[in-house]
Amino acid sequence: MASAPASGEDSLIARYFRPIATDPGAFNLDDDAAALKPDGDDIVVTTDAIVEGVHFLPDDPPDTVARKALRVNLSDLAAKGAVPAGFVLTLALRDTDEAWLKPFAAALGEDAAQFGCPLLGGDTVSTSGPLMVSITAFGRVPSGKMVHRSGAKPGDRVLVTGTIGDAALGLAVLGGGKVHAAVSDIAARDLLIGRYRVPQPRVVLAEIVRDHAGAAMDVSDGLAGDLTKLCGVSGVSAAIDLESIPLSDTARDLVSRGIVGIETLIAGGDDYEILCTVAEDRVDAFLQAAQGAGVAVSSIGTVVAGNGAPIFLDGQGGEIVLKRRAYSHF
Amino acid sequence: MASAPASGEDSLIARYFRPIATDPGAFNLDDDAAALKPDGDDIVVTTDAIVEGVHFLPDDPPDTVARKALRVNLSDLAAKGAVPAGFVLTLALRDTDEAWLKPFAAALGEDAAQFGCPLLGGDTVSTSGPLMVSITAFGRVPSGKMVHRSGAKPGDRVLVTGTIGDAALGLAVLGGGKVHAAVSDIAARDLLIGRYRVPQPRVVLAEIVRDHAGAAMDVSDGLAGDLTKLCGVSGVSAAIDLESIPLSDTARDLVSRGIVGIETLIAGGDDYEILCTVAEDRVDAFLQAAQGAGVAVSSIGTVVAGNGAPIFLDGQGGEIVLKRRAYSHF
Repeated sequence: MASAPASGEDSLIARYFRPIATDPGAFNLDDDAAALKPDGDDIVVTTDAIVEGVHFLPDDPPDTVARKALRVNLSDLAAKGAVPAGFVLTLALRDTDEAWLKPFAAALGEDAAQFGCPLLGGDTVSTSGPLMVSITAFGRVPSGKMVHRSGAKPGDRVLVTGTIGDAALGLAVLGGGKVHAAVSDIAARDLLIGRYRVPQPRVVLAEIVRDHAGAAMDVSDGLAGDLTKLCGVSGVSAAIDLESIPLSDTARDLVSRGIVGIETLIAGGDDYEILCTVAEDRVDAFLQAAQGAGVAVSSIGTVVAGNGAPIFLDGQGGEIVLKRRAYSHF
Repeated sequence: MASAPASGEDSLIARYFRPIATDPGAFNLDDDAAALKPDGDDIVVTTDAIVEGVHFLPDDPPDTVARKALRVNLSDLAAKGAVPAGFVLTLALRDTDEAWLKPFAAALGEDAAQFGCPLLGGDTVSTSGPLMVSITAFGRVPSGKMVHRSGAKPGDRVLVTGTIGDAALGLAVLGGGKVHAAVSDIAARDLLIGRYRVPQPRVVLAEIVRDHAGAAMDVSDGLAGDLTKLCGVSGVSAAIDLESIPLSDTARDLVSRGIVGIETLIAGGDDYEILCTVAEDRVDAFLQAAQGAGVAVSSIGTVVAGNGAPIFLDGQGGEIVLKRRAYSHF
């Protein structure tokens, strides 16, 4: 990002983004680059982009687009045990619409402050296509302490935060089909839509995950598919008790009424909860620490030896065959 | 980037990008994040995106698109005095066309190896719009040693590497208008087009810039506009001798024949040369070191006190008024 003599890009940056770039390493967005001072830590780097019409809807409010763009990255950092250190932003815009940019930048600044993850720099480009917000976020972990997907061991407990499937239901509500019709309560609808538009990254759990989890990732493409990835990289499998998967009251009601199948919830994506495996003798410490941080955690199954995809068991211990496990772009 | 059980995105990453992600901090692209080990250095962070139809042309070869995407970022790092440490990639694609992706990834891997800047991770998303390649690159500098735009002082010499304006002429040649007609020699055309499509980032100068320059930036939006930015942030002005600005033979010929004005060259952008200011008593050391590194450097003027935009002087010392100074997206 650059200083502002003449060009539209520069004055856009000056007006909307300089006020929220308060970290000294951002150099007031006057330079070509930012500086991170790691102070002995490893820097964890994650990058996630959201695209209009794919990850958010064209009429989603600009403030929720900003929050989602940052939070999907904060969710990755938390799952890696990393404490936020800052981010850079690439914004591809069709035009410079003040009515859109002003609330976008304001919400981004609020989230940056709330989660202790300052804006360090960025790039603004023009596009004729869908709006895109690409963020690369940085976190700190003590040297060598990043939590990987690959550390799951047979016997570990499989834990997940929050509830699963609400974001997918929120998207379905916005789509106006049978889920919209089935959820008549406005507050319940808003809650689901809120889960789709504004993820709640589990930043407060970063150090707890780092101290106790053997393997972790965030749930972004669907619990079933993401667990399959984690198990694949760890060289293990897992047995999941479907009835233990944490659902909101609305989600549970929709399943019991047959409005949606379980795949809608566990293969739907956009949850941004933390999925992790924890050795049996550390589960209590993890649960207690998470409770202290105010985050609900559910034990949903066990890591088992093997190379197959995780299996999902019903209340009688019978295996459920899933029709799909994850969202894919291509 | 994620492991590859089922989805198209995952198998795309496995096929094309895993083979070039050889750095241990990339974790084989099997994880949600990468890790950088700064080992006491500051991490310099820069991010630049290139968009089809804006920064490259729809029929530019995929290998040149890959090289340009990485090199515009390497150019920023070099101008900050930072030695490359790695990068993450966000790729927004309309579809997964193997005939495009294979040479794109191969060229990206070659450049990553050549410049010592390994691929650490990324994100692949679908778009209905123009293709976009967004890269965030990391470099190392000893603590506090990043070179800023803001360090120019009256009396400093203004230096620039390579030649200016060839990339803008290359774009004009591709546009097929009067510049195309005026450059009949095929080799000369190819040279200009090459300057537009594949920048030559001055990575070998990073440590020389760090040791000797008071202020530096890379020339990406036009020499005149970028110098105006550098002076603005430094609180100084500059007097530039137009005849000292380094031009290729073809560029000089086109100006002397009146085919293009000087603005086409110094406000055209896409040069990716280093513009820096160096105290008089360090100029010789800078020039000698740059010569040792095989990079031509020209002295084009002097930093002067004042707050006005830099002035451009002709051979008789008269001021030339520029019609425009830079490229702007909006």
